Amino acid sequence: MPRVSQDHLDARRRQILDGSRSCFARYGYEGATVRRLEEATQLSRGAIFHHFKDKESLFLALAEDDATRMADVVAEQGLVQVMRNLLDASSASPALGADWLGTRLEVSRRLRTDQEFRERWAQRSEQLTAATRARLQWQKDAGNLRDDVDIDVLTAYLELVLEGLLSHLAMGLPAQHLSPVLDLVEESVRRHRTR
Amino acid sequence: MPRVSQDHLDARRRQILDGSRSCFARYGYEGATVRRLEEATQLSRGAIFHHFKDKESLFLALAEDDATRMADVVAEQGLVQVMRNLLDASSASPALGADWLGTRLEVSRRLRTDQEFRERWAQRSEQLTAATRARLQWQKDAGNLRDDVDIDVLTAYLELVLEGLLSHLAMGLPAQHLSPVLDLVEESVRRHRTR
Repeated sequence: MPRVSQDHLDARRRQILDGSRSCFARYGYEGATVRRLEEATQLSRGAIFHHFKDKESLFLALAEDDATRMADVVAEQGLVQVMRNLLDASSASPALGADWLGTRLEVSRRLRTDQEFRERWAQRSEQLTAATRARLQWQKDAGNLRDDVDIDVLTAYLELVLEGLLSHLAMGLPAQHLSPVLDLVEESVRRHRTR
Repeated sequence: MPRVSQDHLDARRRQILDGSRSCFARYGYEGATVRRLEEATQLSRGAIFHHFKDKESLFLALAEDDATRMADVVAEQGLVQVMRNLLDASSASPALGADWLGTRLEVSRRLRTDQEFRERWAQRSEQLTAATRARLQWQKDAGNLRDDVDIDVLTAYLELVLEGLLSHLAMGLPAQHLSPVLDLVEESVRRHRTR
């Protein structure tokens, strides 16, 4: 019989992820020191790095968490709904959302200069791309999607708009006017019999 | 008669802008020290800061330069063409483009936390928004624009895609597949009689 149950391990892992997420949001990637991560998670560095190899792995696990959650929403409701949720979340708690997204800006900077990090990040993003493409294929099969543009182009289009939205929100720019923009985005991938 | 001609002042200003642009691209905003700016422009700090109040003003002047050039292209050819030009420039010299855009990522971080800087930046961006709106109005009057969506929404839409593209290129991500995406963006603001 294992000394520590799987449930316990999972709960501990969740505790680390939740605590460190707010820590990264508050202090940024660089500012989230090991000491601050200990405080935020109420666990020792030994416990934290038993679950995650290093700070980067911990951060990537959070990004993976986001990607998984987004992919779940994409599968059920599509990528435009993910964007609507981001918009709602940011208007509900602008500072928190912007802080967490601001951490992604630091990731962006890192992506530019760190090849290995870029590859690890790409694996996480691929999950969202796959979910988006699958959802679009499903919509196409149901006759809801425009059929004059390749699905890969539609996928890249939606992802480009998502990048714009993430960047916009991360900069803390006003976003209340973007809801009709998302309507337009959604409509532009749909099939139209007449306009 | 003035001791220094306006032509001379303009040339000096241009020399400072060109040199400092490559300096910011190479070292980033923080890394572009006064000493490095002196080397890059081949001018003394006294000469540089005779023309620009401080490093921030110099950087904002470069951003204004970009905005003005973009606005000129927008007025003639529209915002989608600006995006196509960015795409072409980045495939012609990926590192150079990404480095300069990467500096904008640092600006993005600053935008989040510095209210005064955000206001100065907003004044620069407003120029591009105005040009985009004017161009769309012109297209609408010519009967080329869809008329079921407000021009402000179409403007915000194009700007959101631009933000996505800038972010994408700044991260140094592959972009060769984005050309048909821009076709889709362009098409989605146009009037369609049939599809």
